[in-house]
Amino acid sequence: MTDRYPQLTEQYAPDAVILGDGDYPRHALPLRILHNARYLCCCDGAGAAFIKQGGMPHAIVGDGDSLSPTFKQQYASLIHLINEQDDNDLTKATHHCMSCGARRIAYLGATGKRDDHTIGNISLLMRYYREFGLFPVMITDFGYFTPASGTCRFDTFCGQQVSIFNFGCTELRGDGFRWAPYAYSSLWQGTLNEALGTEVQLCGNGCFLVYRAFSPLKDNRLS
Amino acid sequence: MTDRYPQLTEQYAPDAVILGDGDYPRHALPLRILHNARYLCCCDGAGAAFIKQGGMPHAIVGDGDSLSPTFKQQYASLIHLINEQDDNDLTKATHHCMSCGARRIAYLGATGKRDDHTIGNISLLMRYYREFGLFPVMITDFGYFTPASGTCRFDTFCGQQVSIFNFGCTELRGDGFRWAPYAYSSLWQGTLNEALGTEVQLCGNGCFLVYRAFSPLKDNRLS
Repeated sequence: MTDRYPQLTEQYAPDAVILGDGDYPRHALPLRILHNARYLCCCDGAGAAFIKQGGMPHAIVGDGDSLSPTFKQQYASLIHLINEQDDNDLTKATHHCMSCGARRIAYLGATGKRDDHTIGNISLLMRYYREFGLFPVMITDFGYFTPASGTCRFDTFCGQQVSIFNFGCTELRGDGFRWAPYAYSSLWQGTLNEALGTEVQLCGNGCFLVYRAFSPLKDNRLS
Repeated sequence: MTDRYPQLTEQYAPDAVILGDGDYPRHALPLRILHNARYLCCCDGAGAAFIKQGGMPHAIVGDGDSLSPTFKQQYASLIHLINEQDDNDLTKATHHCMSCGARRIAYLGATGKRDDHTIGNISLLMRYYREFGLFPVMITDFGYFTPASGTCRFDTFCGQQVSIFNFGCTELRGDGFRWAPYAYSSLWQGTLNEALGTEVQLCGNGCFLVYRAFSPLKDNRLS
């Protein structure tokens, strides 16, 4: 069976959107997905940021560390404080959305600021896919990450920058790329590849994470 | 033998500084290290950014993709164009600094913007340490990454946020942490740890990457 991963568009309507407390989205596409969310769960301080922008989330989940006492009182009905230490706020929010029945979850604001959080959150996507059985996508101002496994087709545009991160494949091959993919042993080895046409294919005996850039060599952030 | 890794300060004087074309530094500490560099090598477009800020690098290295023809002509004496495709600009700049005798190299502006570049560049640090025999440190606006191996002591302050990324250890243990380190199988597992005092120790049978945050829960970027 070949799974197909279409290009991300404004029409993408996941079951839930989780807004992390990293860099607040500035690119038009993640902003549109944020504001169209049928269920929006914010991680702690991101809830305050979203409300400051004039919005209202369905839930705010986290340990409450970055919320003021006044804010906590005012929005008590939205706030789910979870004080366990094994999971970060992104995973707590994920559990919350799963308890509401969500399987297709878009993660925004999950990169930027603390670099160790960025790496942790990107690798957590693989956990949500493999361990939780979700279909997550992480969207930044520059592109988006999709976890996948087995044989997959990804819609691309000609010249689209594509990076592949190997999470456990001992065999990995692909078609439609400028440089032939292989079972990379380091994360940097699969970066900076490029789609030759409107589709790339990957076939691996494990999991991998595919990053498609919105547009090459351009800072798409709205000022 | 126990290697000691002191806290990063304004007095840190590496053999060379490499400025990548990610987010331009805004935190006072990386900016000070940038402006005090005894040898500064910029990756492609970062050279133009640094000159725009009023500085003058010793070298600009890359494929020249993001430099205008006028700029290339004006700064021809500084520019080393390298058109091979196996390495990215950060690695090209690293080779250049190594050819000048540098072993202790600070990387700035190597994160931010394209997320796949960020992940690639962070994992390249391990390559520079293991394969090239360098002593690299990557400094962002939020903290800094140091590759290490074997038995090491890291200076910390009480409550300092520390993350540990395992790159090949099957045994890993540590002292002085809020949560006991182990041979993590996923990148997220070693994040969000914390120093209990003024030093932490790590002992592994392979390599690991240690991230020390400048200050917890705070955006230190100068506006």
